[in-house]
Amino acid sequence: MKIHYPNGKKYRSSPTNQLSPKKKISYSNRGMTLEEDLNETNQYYLQKGIAVIHKKPTPIQIAHVDFPSRSAAVIKEAYFKQPSTTDYNGVYKGRYIDFEAKETKSNTSLPLQNFHEHQITHLKQVDQQKGICFVIIRFSQTDEYFLLPSQPLFHFWERMLNGGRKSIQKLEIEKHGYSIPIQFTPRIDYLNVIERLYYDYF
Amino acid sequence: MKIHYPNGKKYRSSPTNQLSPKKKISYSNRGMTLEEDLNETNQYYLQKGIAVIHKKPTPIQIAHVDFPSRSAAVIKEAYFKQPSTTDYNGVYKGRYIDFEAKETKSNTSLPLQNFHEHQITHLKQVDQQKGICFVIIRFSQTDEYFLLPSQPLFHFWERMLNGGRKSIQKLEIEKHGYSIPIQFTPRIDYLNVIERLYYDYF
Repeated sequence: MKIHYPNGKKYRSSPTNQLSPKKKISYSNRGMTLEEDLNETNQYYLQKGIAVIHKKPTPIQIAHVDFPSRSAAVIKEAYFKQPSTTDYNGVYKGRYIDFEAKETKSNTSLPLQNFHEHQITHLKQVDQQKGICFVIIRFSQTDEYFLLPSQPLFHFWERMLNGGRKSIQKLEIEKHGYSIPIQFTPRIDYLNVIERLYYDYF
Repeated sequence: MKIHYPNGKKYRSSPTNQLSPKKKISYSNRGMTLEEDLNETNQYYLQKGIAVIHKKPTPIQIAHVDFPSRSAAVIKEAYFKQPSTTDYNGVYKGRYIDFEAKETKSNTSLPLQNFHEHQITHLKQVDQQKGICFVIIRFSQTDEYFLLPSQPLFHFWERMLNGGRKSIQKLEIEKHGYSIPIQFTPRIDYLNVIERLYYDYF
């Protein structure tokens, strides 16, 4: 028999009773960042032979390296460089996949300042080469995931450049994008969305 | 009329006569590394809208970052990580391109120790996903470039694992690979080779 020591909170049966209201046991909200979610998903794709998609390393400008021993090099001074591409790319059924991942705490919109101009430029270049490119957006407050194809993204970007709003409304993302359900494994099966969107392409 | 001053060497008509045997005036041997050659080539592809292929940043493990001001971050301690993929990837006509670049000073062979096992593993994973993958090899002494498709590379790698020679002979590269002529621009038109090799694929 389990003894429920009083903790000043209403008793709820295991396993949720020991958790604060913010921590639910579900596939969602395991305290993971979008990057961790995607790394786990890409790892799953890799292990199952579904796709080969990696996150690119952060570009660094190295200014000074020490060699304390023959084998080890220690970087003593370096600076973050602005990336010239998106963060993720790889191959799925022979096709080139390229995307950026963006997270927002807002419940109502994704600020476009989350994007750098060179990322949009890169996505346009990829799009012209018939690569499959998109954005994966996470609304962290509600733990909702969406895949927004590049075309509507370009549209909202142009709208901003033409003096329009500086964000994409969540309603617009729901309309022009595709919800990605959260699963146990793979966490965020975005290729399932891609498979359905580009079914005549593979 | 040109006067050919004697220099103790047999007279050969211009443009080679004024040059020592090692320095020829040609598009080759401008003191560029293979990486510089490829960056220039990829830049050309990008500007002409032919392909979007980038070199991946070197992966770095950051241990300590200083923030001397609000805007600038200085990495004070970091280490080189082993990359889990090859150096170059991108998209050409919708297809995924992935390759590694290797340079050798040997005139007779490319030592297989130039490759890490995870790079071969990665190329095999890409190959299974029907990505187009290969190696670009430069013999720096003679400034010759070859494209070696992944299949013969895998073969030579297996041969080494089975106790065979630890290098690929230049003769084998000439037989199973494709010579890439050096041009003014783009420097190393490797996609021309790919286009011909995979003509039914695009």
